[in-house]
Formats: sequence, structure tokens, C-alpha cells
Amino acid sequence: MTQIEKWNRFELELQGPSRGNPFLDVELSAEFRCDGEVQKVQGFYDGKGTYRIRCMPTKEGTWTYSTQSNVKELDGKTGSFNCTPAAKANHGPVYVNDTFHFAYADGTPYYSFGTTCYAWTHQGDEMEEQTLATLKEASFNKIRMCVFPKHYPFNHNEPAYYAFERDSEGKNDFTRFDPVFWHHFEKRLDDLLELGIEADIIIWHPYDRWGYATMDEETDYRYLRYLIARISSFRNIWWSLANEYDFLLEDKPMERWDTFFKILATEDPYNHLRSIHNGDVNMNYDHTKPEVTHVCIQNAAIRNVVEWRAQYGKPIVNDELEYEGNVPYPWGAISAEEEVHRFWIMVANGGYAGHGETYFDENDELWWGKGGVLRGESWKRIGFLRKIMEEGPGALSPQRGSENTLFPGRMGRYFNLKFAGGVNDDYHLIYLGDYQHKIMLLPLRHNDYQIDIIDTWNMTITPGKAFKLEGSETYLYDFRGDEKGYAIELPGKPHLALRFRK
Amino acid sequence: MTQIEKWNRFELELQGPSRGNPFLDVELSAEFRCDGEVQKVQGFYDGKGTYRIRCMPTKEGTWTYSTQSNVKELDGKTGSFNCTPAAKANHGPVYVNDTFHFAYADGTPYYSFGTTCYAWTHQGDEMEEQTLATLKEASFNKIRMCVFPKHYPFNHNEPAYYAFERDSEGKNDFTRFDPVFWHHFEKRLDDLLELGIEADIIIWHPYDRWGYATMDEETDYRYLRYLIARISSFRNIWWSLANEYDFLLEDKPMERWDTFFKILATEDPYNHLRSIHNGDVNMNYDHTKPEVTHVCIQNAAIRNVVEWRAQYGKPIVNDELEYEGNVPYPWGAISAEEEVHRFWIMVANGGYAGHGETYFDENDELWWGKGGVLRGESWKRIGFLRKIMEEGPGALSPQRGSENTLFPGRMGRYFNLKFAGGVNDDYHLIYLGDYQHKIMLLPLRHNDYQIDIIDTWNMTITPGKAFKLEGSETYLYDFRGDEKGYAIELPGKPHLALRFRK
Repeated sequence: MTQIEKWNRFELELQGPSRGNPFLDVELSAEFRCDGEVQKVQGFYDGKGTYRIRCMPTKEGTWTYSTQSNVKELDGKTGSFNCTPAAKANHGPVYVNDTFHFAYADGTPYYSFGTTCYAWTHQGDEMEEQTLATLKEASFNKIRMCVFPKHYPFNHNEPAYYAFERDSEGKNDFTRFDPVFWHHFEKRLDDLLELGIEADIIIWHPYDRWGYATMDEETDYRYLRYLIARISSFRNIWWSLANEYDFLLEDKPMERWDTFFKILATEDPYNHLRSIHNGDVNMNYDHTKPEVTHVCIQNAAIRNVVEWRAQYGKPIVNDELEYEGNVPYPWGAISAEEEVHRFWIMVANGGYAGHGETYFDENDELWWGKGGVLRGESWKRIGFLRKIMEEGPGALSPQRGSENTLFPGRMGRYFNLKFAGGVNDDYHLIYLGDYQHKIMLLPLRHNDYQIDIIDTWNMTITPGKAFKLEGSETYLYDFRGDEKGYAIELPGKPHLALRFRK
Repeated sequence: MTQIEKWNRFELELQGPSRGNPFLDVELSAEFRCDGEVQKVQGFYDGKGTYRIRCMPTKEGTWTYSTQSNVKELDGKTGSFNCTPAAKANHGPVYVNDTFHFAYADGTPYYSFGTTCYAWTHQGDEMEEQTLATLKEASFNKIRMCVFPKHYPFNHNEPAYYAFERDSEGKNDFTRFDPVFWHHFEKRLDDLLELGIEADIIIWHPYDRWGYATMDEETDYRYLRYLIARISSFRNIWWSLANEYDFLLEDKPMERWDTFFKILATEDPYNHLRSIHNGDVNMNYDHTKPEVTHVCIQNAAIRNVVEWRAQYGKPIVNDELEYEGNVPYPWGAISAEEEVHRFWIMVANGGYAGHGETYFDENDELWWGKGGVLRGESWKRIGFLRKIMEEGPGALSPQRGSENTLFPGRMGRYFNLKFAGGVNDDYHLIYLGDYQHKIMLLPLRHNDYQIDIIDTWNMTITPGKAFKLEGSETYLYDFRGDEKGYAIELPGKPHLALRFRK
């Protein structure tokens, strides 16, 4: 019997009609069953008379299937395969965990440290392989990427493949998908999977000269369903309905976006993560809607992360807090130091962030648009932060405002807890941001933590020693009365963090 | 006849009773008249049988006066003096101008660039003279300073003088002011006037061990009226009801603060500027109340300045956007670079900012508390910014949001106008903050401005040259259609500003 590892992909290949337009004419689906669990999945036409149905088994054991179709030769096909335990590196798809966070299906925490290469799968194999080699060196575990090619400043080249068939004048036949495109796209998803990277798939975007941004409603729905049929069985995908959806509202009104969400929520058998990305900061989609699993946001006002958590009650992923680079636009010209600084603020306050890189290049090869190589300095420090998170005991909750469990109330202002996250009483991570304290008051009642001083830029971790304030130093505690506490000496420069472990 | 320069101080000295308690028993006031203008001012007891009545003439010409008192020997005194034109450096008191800004009484614009030395007048002559020498070198034109001494971390010394008489055990007699204190305090106000510095006088504050923070209501009102009688005739004073008034609310409820404002608004003959400073960022006094002339705010969220302008419709002075330094507290540990950065953001968006410096010192001589010397690096750059403002044609209005007159609407996002201020079409100042554009799109339709590239940290001003985007560079204008525009090459590093002059 065929052996398929849990959360890997089983594929049933069938031969059927190629006459007429199978994309429109042929209905094909299957039920996969294992020990009471049922998956209803759609098949799809893959050209040249070939049909496929894919399944991601979510349970160990024997799976059986049977097909349904309006075409006799595709209907009533049955069979089975055996689902084996997941290998060590296979943790399953990523889902929401503990309200504000993520975890793989096997329970392993997933801390999102994403990057952005919108059109990397449209650059031809040479550059795409280079992108993969770069990703292997970097520490990103998510990538934002478009299905369609991109037309935008620094992005003017034609793609290697097109998602729909085109005539010699470039006119799309939106009723016929081009399997060559999709084989290539799927290979890249598997390449990412091999690197342990989630593909945050941007289904629509406004940067377009090919007609994909202005497809009509019927085409939009057919495209979305074809996408579900082809790739929902890839365990490393997230659905991002759009980049800057609000710039598409003239063509796709809000009701259509709502419908897209509903289709995904009901028809993706694996319930992959779903969100949508705004352009204007005042035009956030209503992420409180139940079909939205997490908040994807574009907003440089990173200090609001605690408010966003309260507002949405979902994981916050700020995928565009502006990019390291030097291009003319505000969204792509912050320094590496500032990029790293913003990541730390997001993460220490219990959110997640996305990276991008936009340095001028004479060949227009900017990482954010096309992939290739990283030229900047922030990506290494972001990897350093990811490592710190993964060495820790769990996801962080912010320690300020109403969630401040360290020093609530007025006393809190004497301790620098603006960017402080905690797991529980045993673990705290406090980012000091722009502050360059020479001595820092410790928000701890007892000297029983191991304290590390983290230099977020130089990527060093140095043990720090708490000392009890005595004698003349107690003036620091004027307002605390008898509650004399502890302090720590610091290098007196910005961009440090403190880690407390019991 | 006595000659008094316009906006200088005329003082009438009278001898009267010293028996009993003249502070409580004696009423004394005067009317000063000049060509239809009438000032009703209160006199005050200055100890040893001496009474004084002060007047700041606001009009050239002959002023006459007559006194009123419940004591015969002080009543009905008359006389006159001649008010001469103001000297070149004397522009009169500062008032609100053009809704969001300030100007001296003679119409000269006043751009507020303040610093903070809360208790500098309580440090003894040697250090106070040092403070004045430092102020002479620096470029601040306002100083926040308390009437009363300060008890706080790094501030533990006894003052040289006390505002009220005290017995040998340090118990205050709140019914008797101590003239020695007031002579000294007034000398310091005149010292500041000589340096062209406005004294932003903090009338109450919570950092206290002497009993001044908890005076009863009657004492509070008597103290405020004594202050008005003594120093309202000093042209360089502003009234700041409190520092962190909200930490005093237990002793002084909101109604009392409202009454303080009303007393000042009706009894200060010169209508000096009035505001009040919060501690908690959520506890701003309601600055929309009509007696409040301008908004004094403590808030590190400097990017909100445009919203504050809209909210209050008054000048915004962020006197505590956190201080350059390295002490344990968040409010006193940002880098010099960050301090300068915050000043530029406030000013470019049409607000004003205040400086402070809190570097650890083995003798606890921190500028913010006691004055002395400046050790940091931000003060020079703040002076550089003040010079740029004073060389410009007027006060700045923000150029973003609804006030964006450069590039309104969606196109605005392709130009970096987050921190852009303009006077009119002839003058714009755009601060680029954290952004390090290598090429910047210019929000101008014609190449007819003189453009300067300002390095806000290195304090250099370099002419920049706009070039028209042509050929392949026009891709930068994908979204602009035929509106091809201009760009400028920049050094590609943060903390630059652009100045446009027609």
C-alpha cells in the first residue's frame, strides 16, 4: 500500500476527457476517510487529459477514498493508502494557538519571523534558486509571495509563466488555467517546505498590467476554488487574500472580499490560516470577522501592538512595518537598526513582524520584489531574535497596561516595561529600545533570576548581575518606601534587552 | 520724570505698617492709567515695613497711578512715569499667535525651544551662576523651573531659601512669605530675561518634603495671588500651574485647578501664558478649557502632534518627550540622537518641544534637576534647529493628513511627508527621520525651489539639486501617469531634512 507521512501529500492521478473545456465542464471531488474522519476535497484538471485529487492526511492509519464526478471515467474510483507518523522535522500546518499566537498542528510553537519576496516565483529558475539559497542561510520561517506577477516600480519584467492561457497577443483566456505555471508554482511551495518556510500566499494584488487585478466576479471565484483544489494539501501555506486589498476596492467591493473569506473557511478542507493585508493604515479590513484567523497589518505605528491585541483578540502579524532599504518611498527606506528595533518592539509586546529589503540595485533586483540576495543587515539580527524566542519556554504576553503582571499601577513607570513580554513568572524578555540606562531598576521582588543582557544589534548575550540597592542608592526608591529592590548595571547604550529566567 | 522702557518694570515702593501680619492684614492695590488704558494691579508686602506695587507698561506715553489700601498711609498715593519705546532686544511678553504658535507682543515670532532645570534657583549662587553661563552658551529660549525646591531622586539637598517663614524646627508659617526667598527668585527671573529666556514657572509640584505640595486651599490661593502680585510684571514669565498635576489630585482636586486657572485669567493684568503639565499620559488636563492658552504635554508619542493640534486647537508644547540621559527611568534615558529626532518631528509637524538632560553624575548634579553644565550632545543640535526656524519666514503648519497641501490624497504616500511643515507655497521644511532614501521624490510640480539638504546631527546645510526624472527613472512615477516630476539624490542616511525656498 502507498505510504504517506502524516501532513504530507497524497495525490490521485486520473485520466479523463480533454475535449471541450474541462476547467469548466468537469466536476470532480473525492471523500477521504480514516477512522471516522472524513475529508471532502475537490479535484482539478491539470491539462492533457490528466486530473488530480490531493489529500493531506491528518491522522495516522489507513485512509480510503472514492471519487465523484459528472464524467463517468472519473467517477467512483476508490482506493486507499497508509498514513505513517510524521518525521521529526514535520510538525504539520500552522494554526492559531492560545488566542494571540501560533503553533504547528503537533503543538510545537511557531513564532512567525517572515520576509517578503512578492514576485520571487516569476524570476526564472536561476534567480529563484538563488533566492532559495539565500533563504536557506537566513532564518525566516515565512515568506509573503504573490500568485500573480508584479507590475510596480523596480518590477517591470515579464514573468516566466502565466496562470491562465494567453493568445499570441497576450490576451488571457480566464476560463483556462495554464498547468505549466501551476507545476512551477507548486514546486516552489515544496522548495519552501523543505526549508521549513511557510508560504503566505497573496491571492490578489493591485500591482498589475496583465488583467489579474480586474478579473470579474465569476473568474475570481473559479480562480480561488482552483487554488484551493491545487494547493490546500500543501501543509506550509497560509491564505492572504490580498496585498493592499483597499486599492482594489473599485474592482472588488467589500462583499466580494467577505465572500472570498467564506469560501476559504468552508471549502479549504485543512482550514489554513486566513488573513488580508491593507494599504492605507485607516483601511484595515475588519479582522474581527470570524473567518479571519489572524491580523495581517501594514502599520509603522508598532507601539500600538498591545492595543491591536485588545482590539482584535487574534494573533497580530505586522507584515509591513516598513522595510530596510533606501528607495524613494517611506515604506522602503528605514535603516537596518530601525528594522531590528521595530521587530523587537512587536515581538516583546506579544506580536509578530515581517521583514523586507529594498536597497537600490542597478538591475532592479530588490529582495522585496524579486528575491535573489540579501544586502542588508537586519536579517541576521532577526534570526538572532528568532533563536532567542525558540530557546525560550513559550510565546510572550505583553507586560504593560492592563496586562502588566510585573509592576501594575503607578509604580510601573519607574521600571522600563514599555516593551516587555513574559511567558509566566519564570521567564521575561524586556526590550529597552531607544533607552540607554546605565543602571536599570529591576521589576523583580527577589534576586532569584538568571539575568542576561542581550545586545540586539551585536548579537551578544552577556550574563548580568542584579545587585540590591543599598545606602545612598536607595534614593532610587524614594517612592517605594520599604520595598527596596534590585538594579543592574548596563552598558548605557540603546537597543539592549534583558532576559530573566528563573 | 521716571523713564521706563515699554514692557520693563515700574516699581512703586511704599513704607507702611510692619506690626501684626501685614501679609494677611493689609490690602493694597493700584490703578495705572495711560491714554485710556487701565491696569488694576495688586501690591504686596515685602517685609520690614516695605510695600511694593509693580507695573509693566504696555504702551508708550505718560502713565499715572493711584493706590488703594485699607491702611491709611498706603492709600491714595499718586504719581506718574513716562513709558519710552522698547529697546531693540525687548519684544515684550510672549502670547499665542495664529492659533498654534507664539509671538512676542511686538509681533516678532517666538519659536519655543525650551529646556528644563526644575530646581536650579535652589542650588546656591555658585551653581546658579554656572547654570546661567551654560544657558548663555546654549540656544534655549524657555526654561521650565519650579518656585519650590524639589525632593526626588538625585534631588536631596536643602534649598538656600524658603518661600515661607519657618521656625527652628522647619515648620512653615504659611501666613508669612519670606522676602529673602523672593528677592533671590526675582533676581533669577531677571537674569533669564537678560539672556532672552522665558521662565515657564511651575507653581506646584508633587516632589516635596517641605509641605508645599499639601498646602490647604486658602494657602494655595494666597500663594497664587502673592505670586501674581510679585512677578506678573516680569515680561518673561509663563504660568505652568503644575508639573504632573495629576499626582497631586488627592490633595488638590480638579475643581481647585480650575479655580487656579480662573484666578490667573482674571487677576494677572498681563494675561501671561497659562498651562499645566500632566504625569500620566492618560491624565491630560482638559486643555480645551478657555483659560488654558496652550497645551503643555508630557508624551513620548511625538508622532501624534498633528492629532493634538486638531484636538486642542492651541499651540502644542511637548515639554517632556523624554530626556537625553542614562538614568534608570524611561523618562530620562534616551540618546542624544533620539532627543534631536523627537524635536524635529514635533517642530516639522507644527508643534514645539522641550529639552532635558539626565546623565548620571557622582554629585547628583543633573541638568534637568539642578542646572550646572550640559554634558550631552542634543542641546547643540536643538540650537541648530532653532536657528533654522528663525531664519525661515514663519511658523510651520504640518503638511500631512487633512492639512497636506503638498500632495493630498493617495499620491501623498509616494512622497515622504510624514514630518513636513510649510509656511506657505514659498517655504517647506521636510524632516526625513529614520528614513534613508538614496533618491527622494520631490513633492513639487516645478523645479523652481532652492533646495537644501540639512544634516540634523552634523549640523550641515548643503545645497541639493533637483533633477527631472527621465527615461528609465520614470518608473518611479508609474502611478502618476503623465505627471512626471522631480527627484533629488540624498546621502542615504537617517536624520536628514530638506528645506525648500522659492
